[in-house]
Amino acid sequence: MQEAFFGKHILITGGLGFIGSNLALRLCAAGGLVTIVDNLHPACGGNLFNVDSAQGALRIFDFDLCDRDALKKSRVFPNKYDFVFHLAGNVSHIASMENPIEDLQLNVISTLNLLEAVQLHSPQAKVVYAGTRQIYGRAASLPVHESHPIKPVDLNGIHKHAAEEYHRIFHEVYGLKTIVLRLTNTYGPRQLIRPSFQGVSGAFMGRALRNEPLLLFGGGQQKRDFCFVEDVVDAFLLAALTPACVGKVFNLSGEQVSLRTFAELIAIQIPQLDIQDVEFPAKLKGIDIGDFHGSSAAFHSATGWKPRTSLPAGIEKSLRYFQSFPERYL
Amino acid sequence: MQEAFFGKHILITGGLGFIGSNLALRLCAAGGLVTIVDNLHPACGGNLFNVDSAQGALRIFDFDLCDRDALKKSRVFPNKYDFVFHLAGNVSHIASMENPIEDLQLNVISTLNLLEAVQLHSPQAKVVYAGTRQIYGRAASLPVHESHPIKPVDLNGIHKHAAEEYHRIFHEVYGLKTIVLRLTNTYGPRQLIRPSFQGVSGAFMGRALRNEPLLLFGGGQQKRDFCFVEDVVDAFLLAALTPACVGKVFNLSGEQVSLRTFAELIAIQIPQLDIQDVEFPAKLKGIDIGDFHGSSAAFHSATGWKPRTSLPAGIEKSLRYFQSFPERYL
Repeated sequence: MQEAFFGKHILITGGLGFIGSNLALRLCAAGGLVTIVDNLHPACGGNLFNVDSAQGALRIFDFDLCDRDALKKSRVFPNKYDFVFHLAGNVSHIASMENPIEDLQLNVISTLNLLEAVQLHSPQAKVVYAGTRQIYGRAASLPVHESHPIKPVDLNGIHKHAAEEYHRIFHEVYGLKTIVLRLTNTYGPRQLIRPSFQGVSGAFMGRALRNEPLLLFGGGQQKRDFCFVEDVVDAFLLAALTPACVGKVFNLSGEQVSLRTFAELIAIQIPQLDIQDVEFPAKLKGIDIGDFHGSSAAFHSATGWKPRTSLPAGIEKSLRYFQSFPERYL
Repeated sequence: MQEAFFGKHILITGGLGFIGSNLALRLCAAGGLVTIVDNLHPACGGNLFNVDSAQGALRIFDFDLCDRDALKKSRVFPNKYDFVFHLAGNVSHIASMENPIEDLQLNVISTLNLLEAVQLHSPQAKVVYAGTRQIYGRAASLPVHESHPIKPVDLNGIHKHAAEEYHRIFHEVYGLKTIVLRLTNTYGPRQLIRPSFQGVSGAFMGRALRNEPLLLFGGGQQKRDFCFVEDVVDAFLLAALTPACVGKVFNLSGEQVSLRTFAELIAIQIPQLDIQDVEFPAKLKGIDIGDFHGSSAAFHSATGWKPRTSLPAGIEKSLRYFQSFPERYL
């Protein structure tokens, strides 16, 4: 599949971040002509070292897409792109409650500015957006399919849903070739694992590698889908290359385990790891979603995708990566 | 019911606009202590004359709620309010497609700023938000209940839905006493009937009163719910006074007729009126929703509300009002 990207013009927003950088490296290796826009916001996971092995093969622009003038003045456009992978955004649920306007800028306004520019300059591009299963909120029944009601539990979920909906409207009204993937808990090399919270998997990896105890809230029995980043990269590439995906929304899912199990799998690699049970912090409890397990059956039907990396293997790869570059991530 | 508002502190955003001003006048008459915030944006329907009969009995602030600093510097807060009626917003579907960022500011950012201020200064207030049935998009089945999927056809719908969702999250996470009413096509005195488009009912009234032909697109058979503004004001007051409404979302509905019938009812009052069939303009066709009829059964159960004004009577009252003050509205 990767040969399809050879010589193609590809824009990746958030391309210095966790998933964006893994995608950028894969596309560079496939001979794609990759442009990255990333605001290097400390909470959003951008890290120039993430694309270190491909520097020189990439155009990198460092500004915030919510800044309309910066986007206009940059030379990101009027380049024509064959593919746009839109991964820029804020994923922190807590931060969205503490600074809603910033979350709105990072997720909503940035998306609107990007889609308007794509519509103007690259109306033929395939656009794949990194949505989130967070928009479902607490699952009414498991597994969660794409038709599940949308009822997020925090402002980040409202904003990510609005951004997703922009993609639908730009497809329906203007014919833009947009595709939305609703990501589940993704983990792997290049994730933000510093204390700035970007999801439980990064928080656990970071604490484990800094010899801090892993804290399980309320027993740690909450179940999540975990998906290794290379599998998520596969999903983005398949979505972009599958005409039947255009205009649609798909769940990605992964391996369903409890947070306790995820912590214990890390402990296999780091035997001195301390796992502690603590009370649920008040400010997290109000926005916790309980158990979650999504179905990616629709995406599997459309593209044949399924995750290939087992959780123990993915966790081992991730920890080894971070241990190789502690000064870049810890 | 109106005695319940005597001596109460009441904030009405968009209180110089169509529905907001009718609500303000009713509440002033009931002895409420009314504060209005309105940006007087030319497309949003604010008109100082709308509250002419109550001036002196009102505090009026003229600034835009999307301007966080202006809100902070104003003396709207730290006043404590018993009731907040949030009607400020942009309703134009076309304008939202032409200037999405402005629509985002007028509907989304303004709402976030308001709710944060209410949470801080008036956490006990009842907050009633003017949502819209537009967020349902094309009806999958009729009549449309509150559980109908949310699938707006334009950016205005995305933004109005996000604003509605903010109310839900502020209720669920912070305990704010929010209520959302999803309004249908409202018409009546004080509506914006200038060519700046604020819904079909205002456009038709304005054209009729300016001796311009009424244009029916695609046969004019599209059905809509029409509800007279005084009935909508009743609904806001009942929602605010009914504890069982807190944290909930309700449809309002009205009398279901085709746009052709609505035009013909206007023609009864203005016999020289010319009704013309024309082709559907391209930029409207993409965001048209077909027939729509909502169910307000849930709101009727909770409050006993139902519309009292027949369409012929409401249209006659509306036209007489505008004919009394042509220089203020035409």
